Amino acid sequence: MKGIFITVEGPEGAGKTTIITKIVDQLKKENYPVVFTREPGGIKIAEKIRSIILDPENTEMDGRTEALLYAAARRQHLVEKVLPSINEGYIVLCDRFLDSSLAYQGFARELGMDEVLSINEFAIGHLMPTKTLYFDIEPEEGFKRINQNKDREINRLDLEKLDFHYKVREGYSLLLEKYKERMIKIDASRSIEDVYDETLQVVKNIIHTAAHNE
Amino acid sequence: MKGIFITVEGPEGAGKTTIITKIVDQLKKENYPVVFTREPGGIKIAEKIRSIILDPENTEMDGRTEALLYAAARRQHLVEKVLPSINEGYIVLCDRFLDSSLAYQGFARELGMDEVLSINEFAIGHLMPTKTLYFDIEPEEGFKRINQNKDREINRLDLEKLDFHYKVREGYSLLLEKYKERMIKIDASRSIEDVYDETLQVVKNIIHTAAHNE
Repeated sequence: MKGIFITVEGPEGAGKTTIITKIVDQLKKENYPVVFTREPGGIKIAEKIRSIILDPENTEMDGRTEALLYAAARRQHLVEKVLPSINEGYIVLCDRFLDSSLAYQGFARELGMDEVLSINEFAIGHLMPTKTLYFDIEPEEGFKRINQNKDREINRLDLEKLDFHYKVREGYSLLLEKYKERMIKIDASRSIEDVYDETLQVVKNIIHTAAHNE
Repeated sequence: MKGIFITVEGPEGAGKTTIITKIVDQLKKENYPVVFTREPGGIKIAEKIRSIILDPENTEMDGRTEALLYAAARRQHLVEKVLPSINEGYIVLCDRFLDSSLAYQGFARELGMDEVLSINEFAIGHLMPTKTLYFDIEPEEGFKRINQNKDREINRLDLEKLDFHYKVREGYSLLLEKYKERMIKIDASRSIEDVYDETLQVVKNIIHTAAHNE
């Protein structure tokens, strides 16, 4: 089987990392050749770049500088980890990729989705994901899950964050429209078990369709 | 006077840094408000990015990762140093900028000039240089100057480097053609004194034309 590249997207609180980790375990149990990764993924140069982005001392970092650094780390992780695995025939599941930059930085942070896409196209080259799973959830619901207390009142600071999460979701909606063929929306508001069952089915379909098309 | 942004380009051995340093000194003596800079220019984030690029341990660095890191350092240097100086009315002379990435990485390293331009347009935004001085020299001549011994024989490794310098020069030639209005070619094969005299005249013309057009 030729390698397959599946990316996983969505806001914090959608449960995507929990679910995708369980799915990777299940697929491994069933002897699928699966690799799970997430930038910077232990790639030395990507880790160094990420440490500049995350250093709390770098308060003067410009939004465009940050977007270029994310694209640089993405490139190196792709070249050193994703591409070799795909070439060896693995199914690579990657937690966040291109679309996170487009939704968060391009749309929510208002750098421009087309502009952020252009630097990411440079970073990615021809390696667009085979398919992308998008875990969709109402920002309030995702927010409550993050805070793990469904009864907590939402304060003013929380509301600012909530507003940002709404913009992120709007960004993802635009991407779903633009990349109809590539992106698959999964309703993440249901129970973890239900979302897991559907996602596992979707991932297996992607794998079997790819195998069939070869 | 509104600020002016002049970039200085050319291969190693063309003498551009020597000459531009003398010109900055002279302009300061004549009380022009001049700032001389060169990426990363003491800008903390840009210095950190540059240290990743230059770290000899990072042998696995991909060419596109490197180009994105250069663009990121360029953005931060521009935002923190070039732009504030221009807004305060300074004449900013910058040793290497956009065109170095286009000639070296885009053309000579074959990443593609249009591709490298696209990530640099993201980095630069609307701040293209007012004018760009290009110090032109035959690769052999520049090479001899670097080695400071005109009688030394050129060996096989030297020839490889020489071949690369020819490609860089070809890249710059394409840029001269593309950016006719912006780029000014200066024949750097002459004596330092002659090149200096012409360059000083050219820079003063740029400044006075800009002042006149306001």
